Amino acid sequence: MNKQFVIKDLGKATFTSPSFNLGPSSFVDDEERVLHDVIYNQNTKKMPDPEFSFEKAGPRKRMFFEPNNTKAAIVTCGGLCPGINDVIRAIVRELYFGYGVHSILGIPYGYNGLINLHKYKPIPLNPEYVDNIHTMGGTVLGSSRGGGDKVKEMVDNLEFLEVNILFTIGGDGTLKGAHGLIEEIERRGLKISVVGVPKTIDNDISYIQSSFGFETAFSLATDAITCASIEADNAPMGIGLVKLMGRHSGFIATNATLAMNDVNFVFVPEVPFKMDGPDGFLFALEKRLLARDHAVICMAEGAGQDILVADAANQETDASNNVKLEDVGLWMKDRIVEYFKSRSLEVNLKYIDPSYMIRSAPACPNDSIYCLLLGQNAVHAAMAGKTDLIIGRWNNMYTHVPITLATSERKYLNPNSVFWRNLMSATRQPLEIFDIK
Amino acid sequence: MNKQFVIKDLGKATFTSPSFNLGPSSFVDDEERVLHDVIYNQNTKKMPDPEFSFEKAGPRKRMFFEPNNTKAAIVTCGGLCPGINDVIRAIVRELYFGYGVHSILGIPYGYNGLINLHKYKPIPLNPEYVDNIHTMGGTVLGSSRGGGDKVKEMVDNLEFLEVNILFTIGGDGTLKGAHGLIEEIERRGLKISVVGVPKTIDNDISYIQSSFGFETAFSLATDAITCASIEADNAPMGIGLVKLMGRHSGFIATNATLAMNDVNFVFVPEVPFKMDGPDGFLFALEKRLLARDHAVICMAEGAGQDILVADAANQETDASNNVKLEDVGLWMKDRIVEYFKSRSLEVNLKYIDPSYMIRSAPACPNDSIYCLLLGQNAVHAAMAGKTDLIIGRWNNMYTHVPITLATSERKYLNPNSVFWRNLMSATRQPLEIFDIK
Amino acid sequence: MNKQFVIKDLGKATFTSPSFNLGPSSFVDDEERVLHDVIYNQNTKKMPDPEFSFEKAGPRKRMFFEPNNTKAAIVTCGGLCPGINDVIRAIVRELYFGYGVHSILGIPYGYNGLINLHKYKPIPLNPEYVDNIHTMGGTVLGSSRGGGDKVKEMVDNLEFLEVNILFTIGGDGTLKGAHGLIEEIERRGLKISVVGVPKTIDNDISYIQSSFGFETAFSLATDAITCASIEADNAPMGIGLVKLMGRHSGFIATNATLAMNDVNFVFVPEVPFKMDGPDGFLFALEKRLLARDHAVICMAEGAGQDILVADAANQETDASNNVKLEDVGLWMKDRIVEYFKSRSLEVNLKYIDPSYMIRSAPACPNDSIYCLLLGQNAVHAAMAGKTDLIIGRWNNMYTHVPITLATSERKYLNPNSVFWRNLMSATRQPLEIFDIK
Amino acid sequence: MNKQFVIKDLGKATFTSPSFNLGPSSFVDDEERVLHDVIYNQNTKKMPDPEFSFEKAGPRKRMFFEPNNTKAAIVTCGGLCPGINDVIRAIVRELYFGYGVHSILGIPYGYNGLINLHKYKPIPLNPEYVDNIHTMGGTVLGSSRGGGDKVKEMVDNLEFLEVNILFTIGGDGTLKGAHGLIEEIERRGLKISVVGVPKTIDNDISYIQSSFGFETAFSLATDAITCASIEADNAPMGIGLVKLMGRHSGFIATNATLAMNDVNFVFVPEVPFKMDGPDGFLFALEKRLLARDHAVICMAEGAGQDILVADAANQETDASNNVKLEDVGLWMKDRIVEYFKSRSLEVNLKYIDPSYMIRSAPACPNDSIYCLLLGQNAVHAAMAGKTDLIIGRWNNMYTHVPITLATSERKYLNPNSVFWRNLMSATRQPLEIFDIK
Repeated sequence: MNKQFVIKDLGKATFTSPSFNLGPSSFVDDEERVLHDVIYNQNTKKMPDPEFSFEKAGPRKRMFFEPNNTKAAIVTCGGLCPGINDVIRAIVRELYFGYGVHSILGIPYGYNGLINLHKYKPIPLNPEYVDNIHTMGGTVLGSSRGGGDKVKEMVDNLEFLEVNILFTIGGDGTLKGAHGLIEEIERRGLKISVVGVPKTIDNDISYIQSSFGFETAFSLATDAITCASIEADNAPMGIGLVKLMGRHSGFIATNATLAMNDVNFVFVPEVPFKMDGPDGFLFALEKRLLARDHAVICMAEGAGQDILVADAANQETDASNNVKLEDVGLWMKDRIVEYFKSRSLEVNLKYIDPSYMIRSAPACPNDSIYCLLLGQNAVHAAMAGKTDLIIGRWNNMYTHVPITLATSERKYLNPNSVFWRNLMSATRQPLEIFDIK
Repeated sequence: MNKQFVIKDLGKATFTSPSFNLGPSSFVDDEERVLHDVIYNQNTKKMPDPEFSFEKAGPRKRMFFEPNNTKAAIVTCGGLCPGINDVIRAIVRELYFGYGVHSILGIPYGYNGLINLHKYKPIPLNPEYVDNIHTMGGTVLGSSRGGGDKVKEMVDNLEFLEVNILFTIGGDGTLKGAHGLIEEIERRGLKISVVGVPKTIDNDISYIQSSFGFETAFSLATDAITCASIEADNAPMGIGLVKLMGRHSGFIATNATLAMNDVNFVFVPEVPFKMDGPDGFLFALEKRLLARDHAVICMAEGAGQDILVADAANQETDASNNVKLEDVGLWMKDRIVEYFKSRSLEVNLKYIDPSYMIRSAPACPNDSIYCLLLGQNAVHAAMAGKTDLIIGRWNNMYTHVPITLATSERKYLNPNSVFWRNLMSATRQPLEIFDIK
Repeated sequence: MNKQFVIKDLGKATFTSPSFNLGPSSFVDDEERVLHDVIYNQNTKKMPDPEFSFEKAGPRKRMFFEPNNTKAAIVTCGGLCPGINDVIRAIVRELYFGYGVHSILGIPYGYNGLINLHKYKPIPLNPEYVDNIHTMGGTVLGSSRGGGDKVKEMVDNLEFLEVNILFTIGGDGTLKGAHGLIEEIERRGLKISVVGVPKTIDNDISYIQSSFGFETAFSLATDAITCASIEADNAPMGIGLVKLMGRHSGFIATNATLAMNDVNFVFVPEVPFKMDGPDGFLFALEKRLLARDHAVICMAEGAGQDILVADAANQETDASNNVKLEDVGLWMKDRIVEYFKSRSLEVNLKYIDPSYMIRSAPACPNDSIYCLLLGQNAVHAAMAGKTDLIIGRWNNMYTHVPITLATSERKYLNPNSVFWRNLMSATRQPLEIFDIK
Repeated sequence: MNKQFVIKDLGKATFTSPSFNLGPSSFVDDEERVLHDVIYNQNTKKMPDPEFSFEKAGPRKRMFFEPNNTKAAIVTCGGLCPGINDVIRAIVRELYFGYGVHSILGIPYGYNGLINLHKYKPIPLNPEYVDNIHTMGGTVLGSSRGGGDKVKEMVDNLEFLEVNILFTIGGDGTLKGAHGLIEEIERRGLKISVVGVPKTIDNDISYIQSSFGFETAFSLATDAITCASIEADNAPMGIGLVKLMGRHSGFIATNATLAMNDVNFVFVPEVPFKMDGPDGFLFALEKRLLARDHAVICMAEGAGQDILVADAANQETDASNNVKLEDVGLWMKDRIVEYFKSRSLEVNLKYIDPSYMIRSAPACPNDSIYCLLLGQNAVHAAMAGKTDLIIGRWNNMYTHVPITLATSERKYLNPNSVFWRNLMSATRQPLEIFDIK
């Protein structure tokens, strides 16, 4: 077995799990693994590598923790994302009703709450407390950024609170912080399980097919595109420009584009593009406007950073120093306006940035289910004494992914793929403006 | 290779497909197959069976049809389902812009339109015609049930219209009709490709991980559950009863239940239950109401048919003959009201049946993307000269599934599964009322 | 002053109201009255009758009740309606923050809760308790029908609870019950103010321009019409039939019809219509279907009761006795199906009844504001010692309406009006099927 | 009769209007007038001034134009606003079906389209063309700003097109342009009626109780407030800042605030406020944050312009010249961040500007009805030969308002009113930060 894919545990699980009277079918065996690759080549007879596979998530026949003597804590970190409350609710209910763990704490405001118990007092959680929270966006526990490096203070406080299981809901940084906690926990010889539920609205965590809240995010983003499209349609030489989330990966922008199919130009961080010259975007936009009188552009916030950096460098020589990189949407807006001014063409550009209206939304029903099952499986893993892992989904099955594996690389959109080809076919955008290697 | 999984074609594809300048990565090879099973057992070292795999869908390097001499037709059959217009739009745009096929017909009102060209005149389709149709529910072509058995008349008309490719969007019956067409086409030695896009709001077609419109359906169904829950909450001894779609399979009811988590009792066709006696539902409902003062029940329309049949039989002995089976929701409503009358307890029951408000809705964004990719892949398959297949999705990849395989058995929910265990844990409904074998 | 329009009070108000430092402009004077009629005839020089006017609602300079010694109670009765929680929230917040009344009780399950304090314990209310309730449909207090005649028990309990102000949120029956309470209160010489907030989803209470929740109701009803319209459009000879609320008045059906403009036939209780014969609806429907292939019908639940009664009477002679009047929507469905069977024409009829999905919805923003201002004005009236009144709105101003006046007659739609003419112009439905006197 | 309120006409109306077989009740008489004021003072016996009244809108018994010889045109100007398509649709359908006028033109892109017939060709309109347009935001005709001063060119083109009736849908500038057209039309002795439908998303046109699209606008704005509130709640020292439309009048900001009741500070153009010092907003915000840890601020875009001007003037002395006034939302954001930096307090501020997502939305059902009736009444007025007027609504009745009256002054929110008192009571914001005269 590839070491990277092996799941750590705290020791032998000896207690019998509650069975729901459903017999053996209600448990998952540690030996069952979900293959990463699912393609079989009929010609070469090549099968996927079995080593490249994930432990299947789900309830185990044996528990490591005895419910009556177990205390769990939940912490939510980083920016808001639809579905966090669903995950919290699922964890609390599965602990309480599924396993009979009644001692559950909510840590306010992320790792900062775990560092400073006096300023931010932990909140006792139970099914009544979480009953309706999934209908609201955000997180009832509150969230904040940073703090993940203060591992000693945090483990001190976990000891002080007598916490046996810590659920961390957060992104790349949060997970790295969680791994740091585990190293300190091991150093101290403690038996505390740390299980992560990966949270990234950008869908850029590796080894999970998609992240919770991502569908809600691109679904809501389609509204912004519709609005941009109407504004563009209704004015002479109308341009609708939408900036969407996606610092490193363009999944939100491309999925929203596919769902609406009203977008003429989509830009993502993974695919460099040219602004100027006969093969550049601005000239292509001019051609489009003269032919059709309107255009809709959808940008991921991380797109075109190379051009912005170059632009900024030029400005530096002009002015003096420390030029802060601008918001890519506002930068693009200025560049377009400037270009058409130089071409003596009047355009009507409307700019839309729906970011915070998306982050704070409640989860769509499909994401709600996903969050519920992530939360349930996180409890199953923790009760079995597993640790240093996140709950993932792969080939539509729930999996255990070592934190170190999940944080080893970011997930990117592949422009050399049939997906990209189908995207290009759907948007029919000019291909010459892109620099695909 | 398992014969069941082999895809038919009309002959050797010789024309070069448009490449979008994306190089070899934009094409899929016939040798690539998607494994059906993805579980590897670490103990037994057992790998999935490679024979049990699907041909991967996607654009092929070579086309069978020459675009300028190709005429395509689209027909939509059966009940409404969110996303049909998205599929139509995707097919038309991919044919037109992706391959340069400009001759496309829409057949009105399903197979009946293909039988009777005079009564229902085919509609010329182009990108302008389909531009905004995805924002509306239903199908621009109209739909109807039946007619699938008149294969001769239909093939006569396909010949008369000089159609080379027929896209059929419909359910089990429609697909069986399509297979009948293919047999007649082969009998006559014609070179007409028939490609299906499977449509079932109940998600009960086999060998596809889920059907388009299904997510929209269970998402909208959650609104009905929320309403039932509020009505139940706000009255003394309040009961909210929701009937949802699902004639043979309970996917909508269970997914809506998981997404809302407000449901106390969920009934599906796959899991028999008891109404009467100390282990029966009615007694469990009474206990729940006395303890909590409200209850929410969610039924798939096909649940409890065995009990209805027995009830009807009893009535028959009482009365005379020809007792028509009642609507299960109304039947359940009557049974509950009657039971509590006999117990001298006053209850407030509110009944909700949202069926047609769901079927006629436009697709949610995630379903829109799914429909787009189904439509694009249907065109890829047809242009390559493949026939007698539907486009499926398996392990999140688009696949070719022989029609005969897809229609060989229905897809059911498995009550002996971790999914069912997690459902029971989420709803916490009494297990003794079910008869799980 | 017309006696009918005079507002009762409990005595001279002597305490100084909190002023919000806004000076005299923040108070309303008892002498200010809102004219009922606003039409001036230039020819006859006739002005509206000043006697026919309402006392203007709003904060008074002097209070009758001293906030520290005041206890208020709120009761919600009858069926659910969007906005009840908004009204509760507004009353609690205005009492608490606006006047400093901190002793507030919520009576559970309507008058039945006031009758039986042991079974349904009153709930202490404060701003924290009501903070988010307006985002949910229904009423946090619960509701029930009936009980309004047990005035002695209720006044006994008001005395027992030492309540000084009772707010009743309910419809016609609830208000009559409230008036009964006041008579008993006066009989006992108590100083308890009873202020009503009129609730009727049908908008059929007189002397208020529209009722809260009504806009939300007809707005949501448009979704049902859209769905019916799509179902009708998408099938050969398709008929969409929608039944909407409106037992005595057709405001929901007509407003939903005007908002969508997709309806071909609208039926309301106020305007009799013919089913049969060459001037009847069924023949008109046949003509419409043959000409356009689809039709949408929108019925208020109280429409055509005269025909149902006659039909039922016929059945009675056929059968034996006690024929229960059927649901008008299901009756209409059967009549249409039967008619076209007799005409040997196949039609596709889809029936939609969205009732409970509308009643349990949260208020739309405009209704939320309305509810807020109703609640605030109810508190102003009660604190000033006024009683036996409801808060109304007339000519967009908030008013005091004596309960006896508001319950003296029902509000009906006038078919002899420009509104009806404009409705007929919008739907273009055949006029001959109606019997307008 | 006050001259200001008199409606112009083109001459005696001699043709008999279609009656819908509804008898005299379906027509409105010119003598019926809607009183502006509706308050009667019982003490002073003072009645409203009858001169201060509007001609009632509605169908007239006699038409000036003969339908077969009448050609109408519609033009839409200025920024987008929900409901424009509803108005267009109502005008076309009422002309076509209500009066039998079949010759109708749509002028593209506002007055610029009327100036330049060659560049922007008029579009023939009919019921089929407008059938579904009300489900989309924006205007099917397109819109643009300016051009209203080129009256000669426009009247030339109206003559060239042989237009008898021009419907202008637009705001203050558009209506002034329309009045200019009428002066030129009169100068030339033409018989062309010009009827306006007032459009202002800010609700700032006088003598109409509210403008179409305004309700949709503030309803959608509540979503932005909800999001801001969640973001503020979920971070330590969280601030949610929402900028809403309202250049001169704060109706959208105050109504959205009342509907949500989550806002702690609301700022409008009509009420000056202080930023600095112990009575200033920034100090009040600090107090609020220290007490409650979160705050929501809602600003109309025209609020605080006096402070921005002063700030800009200071900057001018610092720098050199031509300082452009910043966006008030971004300015406020910077001021808050800067203030808390100076106080060494870390805050988490999230800024939301939903402007274009609101402007391009379709109308809510209540606005749809309003638009329908505005459009119908515009046709009634024009067919009767009336001109130089807009359709208004006052005391819930449709009225004729002379354009010169409607454009004589802007409509403002009155801070010396019970409305403002109730707003302050609802938000409980500190009163000392405002400068109310």
